[in-house]
Amino acid sequence: MDSSILSEKINHTLSTLRYGENPAELYEPIRYIMALGGKRIRPLLVLLAAEMYDKDVEKALLPAAAVEVFHNFTLMHDDIMDKAPLRRGQQTVHEKWNANTAILGGDVMLVRAYQLLLGVESDKLQKVLQLFSQTAAEVCEGQQLDMNFEQREQVSREEYIQMITLKTAVLLGFSLELGAILQGAPEADAEHLKAFGDNIGIAFQLRDDLLDVYGDQSKFGKQVGGDILSDKKTFLMLTALEQANEQQLHIIHNWRNQQDDCIAADKVQAITGIYDQLSIRQQTEQQIDLYFQKAMQHFDAVQLPEARKRTIRGLALQLMERDS
Amino acid sequence: MDSSILSEKINHTLSTLRYGENPAELYEPIRYIMALGGKRIRPLLVLLAAEMYDKDVEKALLPAAAVEVFHNFTLMHDDIMDKAPLRRGQQTVHEKWNANTAILGGDVMLVRAYQLLLGVESDKLQKVLQLFSQTAAEVCEGQQLDMNFEQREQVSREEYIQMITLKTAVLLGFSLELGAILQGAPEADAEHLKAFGDNIGIAFQLRDDLLDVYGDQSKFGKQVGGDILSDKKTFLMLTALEQANEQQLHIIHNWRNQQDDCIAADKVQAITGIYDQLSIRQQTEQQIDLYFQKAMQHFDAVQLPEARKRTIRGLALQLMERDS
Repeated sequence: MDSSILSEKINHTLSTLRYGENPAELYEPIRYIMALGGKRIRPLLVLLAAEMYDKDVEKALLPAAAVEVFHNFTLMHDDIMDKAPLRRGQQTVHEKWNANTAILGGDVMLVRAYQLLLGVESDKLQKVLQLFSQTAAEVCEGQQLDMNFEQREQVSREEYIQMITLKTAVLLGFSLELGAILQGAPEADAEHLKAFGDNIGIAFQLRDDLLDVYGDQSKFGKQVGGDILSDKKTFLMLTALEQANEQQLHIIHNWRNQQDDCIAADKVQAITGIYDQLSIRQQTEQQIDLYFQKAMQHFDAVQLPEARKRTIRGLALQLMERDS
Repeated sequence: MDSSILSEKINHTLSTLRYGENPAELYEPIRYIMALGGKRIRPLLVLLAAEMYDKDVEKALLPAAAVEVFHNFTLMHDDIMDKAPLRRGQQTVHEKWNANTAILGGDVMLVRAYQLLLGVESDKLQKVLQLFSQTAAEVCEGQQLDMNFEQREQVSREEYIQMITLKTAVLLGFSLELGAILQGAPEADAEHLKAFGDNIGIAFQLRDDLLDVYGDQSKFGKQVGGDILSDKKTFLMLTALEQANEQQLHIIHNWRNQQDDCIAADKVQAITGIYDQLSIRQQTEQQIDLYFQKAMQHFDAVQLPEARKRTIRGLALQLMERDS
């Protein structure tokens, strides 16, 4: 099936979900964040993996929705913690309402995510919920590490990879694994798809770090250099900090905490200049390639005819080639 | 079995739980709140109900722990929302660490609560998780209503009962229902135990409201009149507001928002005086009795020999008679 047809199925399923009515103060913010949209990439991964094993993906629809509801729960809570004013160009829930509403709304969303998984066939229910719970806890661990790193002076690249693995990648891996399990895929296949998703997720996040600096402004959704301006400890910055000489370190430290709009272009140019001197772009591309190769090795190990694997393989290649 | 032996089993089970290690910033606050203690009444209800159907309560231990972990998750998040500085005489998690830690720690606790339920026998798993999820969402709804009521001028007594039902009572009802289901109790019994727990929970909360004003200071754990001082909309206050004449209303409104320590005794005396004029104590006792009777009707309908029901019946009577 064309992935746009699957996306339609996802959007239709999400539009039929009922979170609750009373009190309205609790449920309105949930409908609001779910209506903000987004690429719905996680439920799409569930369905794509499911489709490889059985064209009939009906029984994967609500579990796919569960993953999207869970993802939006993490966004609602992360936005409070990060004091983010905007989400997909709209006010975040804690800004539009207040932090208490966003805490409680997120709590209910986590419960609703579990409930959407309760329709899973009974012989698979325990395993699915165990994997989901483990993933959910890992995503929380990733968010905690992310907050820890903001407070720390030194963060190694290995620690950074660990953080993005937990915060972002494991949910992509779980989405694929879930789709496979629901359709009765062999355990080895499900595990390879999980590892494929985890590694693609890491590559994807590193690519995001790279595009922030070297992306094409006309195609990249966000402001180029945004991570540099906000002193974010991205893979590029951590690599630079590890490899910079004293003079370069001095420049980096001098620009830190300077977030005035009027010096923005100078700051981005100065830091990018150091990245260029240290070949940070090439080093990051190498890392992306490494995780991408790892991902594809796991994908290749999935025991299915190539024709069944074409859609996901195409999507993976496309994600890696995007420059926006 | 003596309920003190069951309590020991609960404490032992809770002491063996492992929530996670890394990052320590995430898991330390969870161990902290779980170590603050408390009466562990909810897991005790799980085991007491379980014991009525089978003396061997081993398989109810982890589910009982799940309910306690869930309860402490709600405390951790409620304390942020209520800006509470203390919990069981110790600093709350958001005070000792910060709000972000308390948000994320609570999230993981909710996940861990679900995980502790995953060992339930597979033919009962879906039902248990569905009832647990519904209860969890209701508890969140109750907390939202509680926050709404703080902002509202008028709250009816019916709305108040609805709020405490959701926020407090349904988890007591679920605890009993869970214990029964785990041991294969007939569905009708499980439902009667649920209704018994819900109604006992309402009676218990109303008794708490009453003791705040008319309790024996030497036996009551909190400061007598605490609810009056903080202008809490308790059942007593809502009844008074409905029945007060113009002069009495005037006095109540005049004392509102006066929370200075030096006028505390005068305020408590003035409001209690109005309560006395309106027979609020007697009216509240009537309501408590009404919910207690309802509870006992459901308990009486449980199809077990009286000998099996003796412990829970005794506990219910004891809870209702406590004046502290």
